[in-house]
Amino acid sequence: MQSQPDPRRVLRDLRALRAATSVDGGAQRVAFTPGWTRAREWYSNLLAGLPLETRRDAAGNLWSTFHGRSSRTLILGGHLDSVPNGGWLDGALDLLAGLEVVRRLASEHPEGPPLTVRLVDWADEEGARFGRSLFGSSACSGTLDLDAARTLRDKDGLTLPAVLAEHGIDLERLHDARRELDQAAAYLELHIEQGPVLLDLDQPLGAVLGTFGVERHAITFTGQAAHSGSTPMARRHDAFLAAARLGQEVYPIAQRHGGVCTIGSCATSPGIPTSVVAECRLTLDQRHLDPAALAAMWTEARESSERFAREARVQVRWERLLRIDPAPFSPMLIDLADAAIRDVGAAPIRLPSGPLHDASEMVRAGIPTAMLFVQSLHGISHNPLEDTREEHLELAVRALDRLVRRTLDHLSA
Amino acid sequence: MQSQPDPRRVLRDLRALRAATSVDGGAQRVAFTPGWTRAREWYSNLLAGLPLETRRDAAGNLWSTFHGRSSRTLILGGHLDSVPNGGWLDGALDLLAGLEVVRRLASEHPEGPPLTVRLVDWADEEGARFGRSLFGSSACSGTLDLDAARTLRDKDGLTLPAVLAEHGIDLERLHDARRELDQAAAYLELHIEQGPVLLDLDQPLGAVLGTFGVERHAITFTGQAAHSGSTPMARRHDAFLAAARLGQEVYPIAQRHGGVCTIGSCATSPGIPTSVVAECRLTLDQRHLDPAALAAMWTEARESSERFAREARVQVRWERLLRIDPAPFSPMLIDLADAAIRDVGAAPIRLPSGPLHDASEMVRAGIPTAMLFVQSLHGISHNPLEDTREEHLELAVRALDRLVRRTLDHLSA
Repeated sequence: MQSQPDPRRVLRDLRALRAATSVDGGAQRVAFTPGWTRAREWYSNLLAGLPLETRRDAAGNLWSTFHGRSSRTLILGGHLDSVPNGGWLDGALDLLAGLEVVRRLASEHPEGPPLTVRLVDWADEEGARFGRSLFGSSACSGTLDLDAARTLRDKDGLTLPAVLAEHGIDLERLHDARRELDQAAAYLELHIEQGPVLLDLDQPLGAVLGTFGVERHAITFTGQAAHSGSTPMARRHDAFLAAARLGQEVYPIAQRHGGVCTIGSCATSPGIPTSVVAECRLTLDQRHLDPAALAAMWTEARESSERFAREARVQVRWERLLRIDPAPFSPMLIDLADAAIRDVGAAPIRLPSGPLHDASEMVRAGIPTAMLFVQSLHGISHNPLEDTREEHLELAVRALDRLVRRTLDHLSA
Repeated sequence: MQSQPDPRRVLRDLRALRAATSVDGGAQRVAFTPGWTRAREWYSNLLAGLPLETRRDAAGNLWSTFHGRSSRTLILGGHLDSVPNGGWLDGALDLLAGLEVVRRLASEHPEGPPLTVRLVDWADEEGARFGRSLFGSSACSGTLDLDAARTLRDKDGLTLPAVLAEHGIDLERLHDARRELDQAAAYLELHIEQGPVLLDLDQPLGAVLGTFGVERHAITFTGQAAHSGSTPMARRHDAFLAAARLGQEVYPIAQRHGGVCTIGSCATSPGIPTSVVAECRLTLDQRHLDPAALAAMWTEARESSERFAREARVQVRWERLLRIDPAPFSPMLIDLADAAIRDVGAAPIRLPSGPLHDASEMVRAGIPTAMLFVQSLHGISHNPLEDTREEHLELAVRALDRLVRRTLDHLSA
């Protein structure tokens, strides 16, 4: 007979974690700090009594393995680490809902589940101390650049290698963590949506299509300073004019392709009321789930910027700040996520994820991956105000459990 | 018989002044500094032997009076003071060309001209040390705000009253200078154009229509910060989007009304690549010669900003930084300036002045006023590179002389 998860136990666990690791209302579990260590100790106590083999890998990820009848593995992930003064659900919900599913599996399969199931607490998903997010999962996937990691420092000047060593982690052996994924057949994660899509749709749950790829550029228009009173309009080389036109144009470009884009910063030089702008620097962040659409958004924005620069008789140059490939999730697992959402009586919404998740690294490692999102009450995250209605949290735990059941059924069929 | 001015003597005087007061190629004659005092000593020596009564007024302006058969007065103005590292012609050409005209008058009218002619070296036209331009002329016109002037400090923290006292000027008695204008019938000034209009037209001289009025505002759009990845485009309150649309719209507004406008500064907050802009602050500087057109430009920009704010679902507020009324010159004197330009064989171009001049204060004092502009080789000023072709300088001196002759004829008819 099928067992059922106990969503209220997950709520109790989340509240206990909050009580143990919050200050001023916000989660204080920055990776590689005492708050994080305390959270992991608290979490390890939770695991006692379950048929799990728990150990840390070479990158500090904490793996709890429920050996099954097959060594093929379904991984459930989450992360206890938070940003400073973070939300109580971001990462913790994932892990503690996963733990509840493991409890349910242990009750239903005392002899072990059909596949091996592993619950992983990723180390330093947020990158809050050293600015390198997805640290542990990228060590596993092999995308972590050791040369770059070696030079990272926190705000006190401490190096990442030194701080890792304090936690018993050898930076030079980080990639040994790759072997953890050897038997992986699928990766699943439940996360609070870090945006307002489900809130606006008034729906509790969504199946995530993948994480956006990012093209981030600095765009500098260079014209000529000239006196605001004595320079006729037709004689100007106004860098802001060209930048402002691009500021309009990126919106329809994103809309046409179904992506998002943001001009987050605009700086002008000399930046005084009495001079035409000689130099205007924008940052443009473009995101899309589809690599071809993302590339087209970038190309169209660049071509537009060149046209506007010509028309305003200024120069333009682009400089890449960041590029992240889209990480599309497994169509099969997305279908199962839809079905799991229907199983608990909710409408099957599909949506992309703007922010990255450890799941993105699992896609990069070639593992079929899917995520569930649960509605965020204010559409915000990385904030003590982050919250989700209690009934939505319970629904989310039940949906994750259904998704695990369906995935195990599918993989062992 | 008519005497003629000697334009080459003006060139020699200008070069001598440059030799006496330049460092690193730029004029170093900031008002109320030793370089300015030196320039005035040099200038006072030039006056020796001319039938002029020279004295300083209550605001430090240096007046040289050639008493005529009538006490009605034609004033010729200029200024020896410069910005730091300024151009050699800005202000000095005006004064030394005026001096040459006085020399011609003295030779032609040993008994005194038909009207009294006064040559004035305005004190602190540039406002380079205390940030209050048109200091001496506004003391004469009565528009200088004593309460504001009392609080001015230079970059070393010295107050304007203290520095004035060092130069024998009592701030509390500045407005005594108003009586200098009691008999004024007209004011004339020759100045290097501080823009590229005559250069673009390939013409040496222009009759100035007046100095632009200015409406200068800070415009702040307030939206909402939101994550660049997780916030759908349709849900944004993007302050930069509204600001960028206004950045487009002010151009056609200025064009429709024949004025100029400049968005000189754009600042964004939080100003990071990963957040929608929550606050965007622009400065808008609008200028026109006609008060009604200037008011219309301002109203249309404000209405546009409100429309764009509504459409982007952000707030907008305006804050006035500066307002200067237009100073239109005397139509009669502008006609005479046209004629004087024709007299020397040049085409009669008319153009407004973007920058203010002491002439603006004479308009405010109710004195019929006109100016001649001579072409600037690079269309720039306040720069050691400021220059004018020698033949244009000579033409300009001759045109100013013709304008004085025509004005005296007109006033004494």
